[in-house]
Amino acid sequence: MSGYETDTVTRIETNLDDLSPQVLGAVMQKLFDAGALDVWFTPIQMKKNRPGVMLSALCNEADAPALADLFFSETSAFGLRMEKIQRLKLARRFETVQTRFGEVTVKLGLKGDRVLEIAPEFESCRVAAGKSKASVREVHAAAIHAISLRFAEKGRG
Amino acid sequence: MSGYETDTVTRIETNLDDLSPQVLGAVMQKLFDAGALDVWFTPIQMKKNRPGVMLSALCNEADAPALADLFFSETSAFGLRMEKIQRLKLARRFETVQTRFGEVTVKLGLKGDRVLEIAPEFESCRVAAGKSKASVREVHAAAIHAISLRFAEKGRG
Amino acid sequence: MSGYETDTVTRIETNLDDLSPQVLGAVMQKLFDAGALDVWFTPIQMKKNRPGVMLSALCNEADAPALADLFFSETSAFGLRMEKIQRLKLARRFETVQTRFGEVTVKLGLKGDRVLEIAPEFESCRVAAGKSKASVREVHAAAIHAISLRFAEKGRG
Amino acid sequence: MSGYETDTVTRIETNLDDLSPQVLGAVMQKLFDAGALDVWFTPIQMKKNRPGVMLSALCNEADAPALADLFFSETSAFGLRMEKIQRLKLARRFETVQTRFGEVTVKLGLKGDRVLEIAPEFESCRVAAGKSKASVREVHAAAIHAISLRFAEKGRG
Amino acid sequence: MSGYETDTVTRIETNLDDLSPQVLGAVMQKLFDAGALDVWFTPIQMKKNRPGVMLSALCNEADAPALADLFFSETSAFGLRMEKIQRLKLARRFETVQTRFGEVTVKLGLKGDRVLEIAPEFESCRVAAGKSKASVREVHAAAIHAISLRFAEKGRG
Amino acid sequence: MSGYETDTVTRIETNLDDLSPQVLGAVMQKLFDAGALDVWFTPIQMKKNRPGVMLSALCNEADAPALADLFFSETSAFGLRMEKIQRLKLARRFETVQTRFGEVTVKLGLKGDRVLEIAPEFESCRVAAGKSKASVREVHAAAIHAISLRFAEKGRG
Repeated sequence: MSGYETDTVTRIETNLDDLSPQVLGAVMQKLFDAGALDVWFTPIQMKKNRPGVMLSALCNEADAPALADLFFSETSAFGLRMEKIQRLKLARRFETVQTRFGEVTVKLGLKGDRVLEIAPEFESCRVAAGKSKASVREVHAAAIHAISLRFAEKGRG
Repeated sequence: MSGYETDTVTRIETNLDDLSPQVLGAVMQKLFDAGALDVWFTPIQMKKNRPGVMLSALCNEADAPALADLFFSETSAFGLRMEKIQRLKLARRFETVQTRFGEVTVKLGLKGDRVLEIAPEFESCRVAAGKSKASVREVHAAAIHAISLRFAEKGRG
Repeated sequence: MSGYETDTVTRIETNLDDLSPQVLGAVMQKLFDAGALDVWFTPIQMKKNRPGVMLSALCNEADAPALADLFFSETSAFGLRMEKIQRLKLARRFETVQTRFGEVTVKLGLKGDRVLEIAPEFESCRVAAGKSKASVREVHAAAIHAISLRFAEKGRG
Repeated sequence: MSGYETDTVTRIETNLDDLSPQVLGAVMQKLFDAGALDVWFTPIQMKKNRPGVMLSALCNEADAPALADLFFSETSAFGLRMEKIQRLKLARRFETVQTRFGEVTVKLGLKGDRVLEIAPEFESCRVAAGKSKASVREVHAAAIHAISLRFAEKGRG
Repeated sequence: MSGYETDTVTRIETNLDDLSPQVLGAVMQKLFDAGALDVWFTPIQMKKNRPGVMLSALCNEADAPALADLFFSETSAFGLRMEKIQRLKLARRFETVQTRFGEVTVKLGLKGDRVLEIAPEFESCRVAAGKSKASVREVHAAAIHAISLRFAEKGRG
Repeated sequence: MSGYETDTVTRIETNLDDLSPQVLGAVMQKLFDAGALDVWFTPIQMKKNRPGVMLSALCNEADAPALADLFFSETSAFGLRMEKIQRLKLARRFETVQTRFGEVTVKLGLKGDRVLEIAPEFESCRVAAGKSKASVREVHAAAIHAISLRFAEKGRG
């Protein structure tokens, strides 16, 4: 799969049918604090008509023991599943663009030289929107427009 | 909406973000036992990243007080929503058909004289499947075929 | 609720625990063809551990009988719920903007004179993206940028 | 429905098939800030294979115009549904209990004199758990135990 | 696992919290066009209260690079997960049956000589239903009945 | 990952877009009867607007062939995915505690000597609740309190 960066991460998962959503909501932040790359809940339907939740976290292999400890200490899990998974990634670069709402930071995703992803940083858009009384969506579009113009000009250069 | 039967039922609903799915699984049966016409869970996403559940029940107006009591005594709800809703229904009639797997009961749904729904009873199919070592799906299809033939012949009659 | 347009629509709903998703997928289009304003599925958990689906449709009152007939003839429903619901709406206006990817139609949502929503038409963006080998997201952002500039200039005028 | 408190609230809902989850996540807090009693997302499946989201908010009738404005200014909605809904509620009372992990505030739900709900405040449990290095679940259970003992003694008194 | 066919496929997955459902709906078809064996969305709850979507595709190993490219060019993903998974399959055979609604194609799934799955082709049922003004479900049942009779007779033969 | 028990289990999964939820509800029990360690449904959105279901089961490697046979004979699957997954587990021990509602069995989860999980058995709580007219939640909290006191005393001993 030439052109992409690759690494291997660990996915930790457990099915929970006996934990209050209050507790689960608080667990998410603790897992991020311990180094999780991503954390998410999936609604699942479990035995005895129970509307359960699958808790999933992605992390670097080095952080897996700490995250596993949190799964056991912070949730009702008696067991969890661990898998190693290959990941494909774009290289990341940050640029700043001027919009009529102010400066916005844009995250770029690259495959070699080619820019495949243009993602104005949400927090950056929110700050600019707050200052200019525009909506986040307007600022977001202005930033995409600005960076996409910049690349078009380079291409023409 | 001529041709359909109508009645008015009560829908009771509450959003739960602090109850174990174990308890919820057991609540469903208690609500049916108290007269609920239907009970269901919807996965919802609530405040503070909590993966909550909406508990909904449908009942006749006369049973609403008993069901409301169960919502309060059996779940963690401090409040619930009650709405009166108009319902449209088909008239129901049960017939028995012979299949090569044995007798099966079929529930028919009628708008006046016209049969709009043909639903072999699941439990009835399961019993016949068990006796004949066929799958429930084969028995189900045989029953639909048998009843649909019966109506085709009447139509030709 | 001054400033908004209002009307009353009918919501038709039924819980389905005995219908193949294949059939449900095809029902959606039939309901739109019969005049539905919106149609959607919600995953719900029903009795006896069944992973059911709630089918919902929104329509003008005049179309409700035709849609109810489709619910009964095309799904396994023996009953359905009908509710009248007040709707608040923005006035709609369509404008065309020039982007460097070509012309795009934009749907505007207005409360009196104020433009509250700017929505480049998805199909229009897709056509422009196809012609210029850009992504739909780039065209979408360029269109929002163009229309938002137009309003900024008017504001300054 | 004697014994319960009742009031009437407004439910505002809209189906969204063209809004980034990033924006939606930020909308929730804005709606609470504007007086929403509850806000939640339901995953729904919309036309053209779009995995949409239903945004729902519950509020007092007086706050409905402000929340409707937020629905239009902060999301991509061109229309929304408003319904008045009767609510049944328990009376609420707060008590403080001593546990071996420290003081915890407990919210009680009453129907007349009868205590139907016992809910240790989550934040209160979290603080006590933090101080004593216990888990939130242990503190939660200790608080329920303490308050339930108090009522048992009163009952014997 | 004797008796079944086996192969190895690649599952590609990514969690999306910043992409409009409009775009996602269109991505599904592009992935199928590029050779995906299956594509599906799972509603997930991500950080910062975002109602995200997991996009999953299954493909032959040879098609994985093309699909990965589409994940990056058509969605907002900066990374994706790739796993090789063993698959167990039934051998497939197609037969045509006569029903009173016309010809229907039936897909059979076999483990060695034994027929384990009988699946009337949905499109084939739909065509026959359209011609005979029957419902798809009636045609579907008639086809299952016809093929299951054929096998019963062979068994008796 | 020292301190935890580990084993390897098999996860079997299939996506279903053409099976009635009635049948799926009954499949869950059959899979548990054949030795499944866990079974669950995930709502997924599949091609052609179909609201499908992913059926997942976890089992010991020795039981995988029997479960695979059930997937094929009891559902509409023509193929399924099998993965070997490492599992981390707590050691389990059962203790009995006295509460003012009667005896309750508590399942403990241990990492070496440390108790990480305390889970009153739901059925045991339900029986005690039934005898004493208390709610399951009260009994559950009393059991956690009792066992947590026991450990606190040992700690002080």
